[in-house]
Amino acid sequence: MAVTAPEPLSGEDRLIARFFRPLAQHPGALALTDDAAIVSPPAGCDLVLTTDALVAGVHFFAEDPGDLIAKKSLRVNLSDLAAKGAEPVGYLLSLALPRGVPDDWLAAFAGGLGEDGAAYGCPLLGGDSVHTPAALTISITALGMLPHGTMVRRSSANAGDRLMVTGTIGDAALGLALRLEPDLARRWKLEPRQRSHLLDRYLLPHPRNQLAETVRRYASAGMDVSDGLVGDLGKLCAASGVAADVEVTRMPLSDAARQALMFDPARIETVLTGGDDYELLTSIPPAAVDDFVDAAKQAGVAVTEIGAVKAGGGPVRVLDRDGRPVVFKQTSFSHF
Amino acid sequence: MAVTAPEPLSGEDRLIARFFRPLAQHPGALALTDDAAIVSPPAGCDLVLTTDALVAGVHFFAEDPGDLIAKKSLRVNLSDLAAKGAEPVGYLLSLALPRGVPDDWLAAFAGGLGEDGAAYGCPLLGGDSVHTPAALTISITALGMLPHGTMVRRSSANAGDRLMVTGTIGDAALGLALRLEPDLARRWKLEPRQRSHLLDRYLLPHPRNQLAETVRRYASAGMDVSDGLVGDLGKLCAASGVAADVEVTRMPLSDAARQALMFDPARIETVLTGGDDYELLTSIPPAAVDDFVDAAKQAGVAVTEIGAVKAGGGPVRVLDRDGRPVVFKQTSFSHF
Repeated sequence: MAVTAPEPLSGEDRLIARFFRPLAQHPGALALTDDAAIVSPPAGCDLVLTTDALVAGVHFFAEDPGDLIAKKSLRVNLSDLAAKGAEPVGYLLSLALPRGVPDDWLAAFAGGLGEDGAAYGCPLLGGDSVHTPAALTISITALGMLPHGTMVRRSSANAGDRLMVTGTIGDAALGLALRLEPDLARRWKLEPRQRSHLLDRYLLPHPRNQLAETVRRYASAGMDVSDGLVGDLGKLCAASGVAADVEVTRMPLSDAARQALMFDPARIETVLTGGDDYELLTSIPPAAVDDFVDAAKQAGVAVTEIGAVKAGGGPVRVLDRDGRPVVFKQTSFSHF
Repeated sequence: MAVTAPEPLSGEDRLIARFFRPLAQHPGALALTDDAAIVSPPAGCDLVLTTDALVAGVHFFAEDPGDLIAKKSLRVNLSDLAAKGAEPVGYLLSLALPRGVPDDWLAAFAGGLGEDGAAYGCPLLGGDSVHTPAALTISITALGMLPHGTMVRRSSANAGDRLMVTGTIGDAALGLALRLEPDLARRWKLEPRQRSHLLDRYLLPHPRNQLAETVRRYASAGMDVSDGLVGDLGKLCAASGVAADVEVTRMPLSDAARQALMFDPARIETVLTGGDDYELLTSIPPAAVDDFVDAAKQAGVAVTEIGAVKAGGGPVRVLDRDGRPVVFKQTSFSHF
C-alpha cells in the first residue's frame, strides 16, 4: 500500500516537540497535541487571567540571554497573579520568532520557561508559534485561581489604609539607566556588586508569588508595580476613588540605589516613576498592618509602609523630608 | 494644597479608555481598570483555552482594513473553540503596535472587535498594548466553556468513523494565491463574483461556532482546519493513533474553486494543503452521521462526508477518482 501523503514533522511541529512539549506538564495541556487546553476549576474557585507582551528592543535587549528573556516574560505575568492574590495554574505562550533564531537560543528560552514553570508551579498550557519579519515578540497569558470572591482589586482601597510595598523600589529602573549609559556606574561610584544588583534587577524580576495568600488575607486593595510606583499608585487611587500621600524618606531602597541617589539626587524620579519593579503595592487596613508584616516576614519578604490612603479623589502626593510635595515630569512609563 | 503629582492620562491609558474599554462588556473585565480579569465558572464546567497570533505581512496584509484584521484575529481563535465544542466566554488581547498607527485605524480595529465580540458572544476580558519597532502583531487568547468532560479532542477518533467537514475547502488558500498573483483570476476565468468569493474567504474566516453544541454531541474527535486539510487531518490521526482515507471527488468545493481547478488542476494541492479554511473537521461514528447532518443543517451549516477513519497508525491517504493515492509536496502550512 503506497504511502501517499507522508506526514513528516513540519518545522513548527519539530519546534513544539523539541522545545515546548517538555514544558507542558499540566494534564490539560494535552501534551500540546490539540487545538486548545482544558482546565477543570474546582467548585468555588474564581479564575484570574492576565496577559503581558514583551518585544525585543522595547522590553528587553535582543542580545540578552534567552533563558532570562523567557523568565522575565513569564514573571511579569506571575507578578500580576501575585498582586491579585491568585495561585498560578498555567500559561499560554504566543511566540513570534524572526527567521534564523538558532536552536541553542530556543533551547535556552525553553529551558528558562521550564525552570520557572517548575519554580512557580505554573506549567505551559498551550501556545502558538509564528514567524515575524522583525522583532521577537513574546506574549504570555497566565491563568491563576483563588477562592470565589477573594481577588484583591485595585478599586477597594479605603481612606486610612496604610500603603505597603514589598522589597525595594527603583533598582530595575536604575539598572536600565546603567544599561543605556554604562558610564553612570562611575559617576555614581558604584561598587561592582552594586552595579550588578541594579543590572540584575532590570534583567530579571522576582515576583512575590509567595505572598499571594497573605495579600488575599490582609490587603484591602493591591496591584504590582510595573510602570512606576507613583503612576501605579495613581491608578490604584483612581480605581478606588481615593487620594494618597507617600513619603520619599520611607521608600525602601537598596544600598545600590541609595548610593546612586547620593551622587545623583535627581534620579529619585527614575526610582519612583521608572517601573519594572514587580514589587507588590498594597493598601492594608491599620488594624491588619502588624499581622500583614509578620505574615510577609514568615514568607521571607520585607514590606515597608510608605504612606497612607486619604479620603477624596485627589492626586497622589509624594512628600519630601520637609513634607513638601515633589513634582515629577511623568509619573509612569507609557508606551504611547 | 499643592497638586504635586498630577495624573494626566498616559497615551496607553487614553488608548485603552478610548478604544478598548467599550469592548470590555464582561463584568470580569473590571472595565480594564485592574491588573487582571476574573471569571467565575459555574460548577461542573470546564474551561477551554486557545491562543493564536497574527503578524502583519505574515497572516494578513498590513494594508487590509483594520476591522477585518481585528475580526480575523478573533475568529481564528473562535474557530478553535467551535472545534472543541466550547461556547465562547471572552478573550484577552495582546497588541504590539508600530509607531504612527493612526487613530482611525485603531477605531476601525476596535470596531471590528466590538462587532464580533457581540456577534459571537465573546467580549474583551483584558489585554496589553505595547509598542513594537516593526510589524503589527496581534495575539489573542480566547476562553471557552463547556460541561465537564465534554471537550471534543483530536485524540479520540475511532476506526470506522466518518470524516465530515463543514462548508467548502480551499477557498481561502486560493484567495491568498489570487492576492499574491492577481493575474490568476484571468487564467482561471473567474467571474468577478467568484474572484470576490475567494478573496473574501482569505480576508475573513467564518468560524462555525453555531455548531459547537452539535459537535460536542456527535463528534468522536475534531479540530478546525487552519493549516491545510491534509496536514490537519494527519495531526488528528496521529493524536488518535489511526489512519484515514479521504477522496478528492468528495471534497466540498465552492463553484469558484471548481472553476479555478478546471483551468489549473494542480491547484488541488493549494486547496487541500493551503489552510486558512477555519472549517470544522470531525470524525462521526457511523450511527450518528444522519443526526449530525440534520443538526448541522438546522444550524444552517452544510457538512460533507469526505472519507473515513481506518485502523492502524498509517498516514492519511488522499485518493483520486480512480482510487489512486495523490502525493503532495507539503501537507500543511508551517511557519518554520
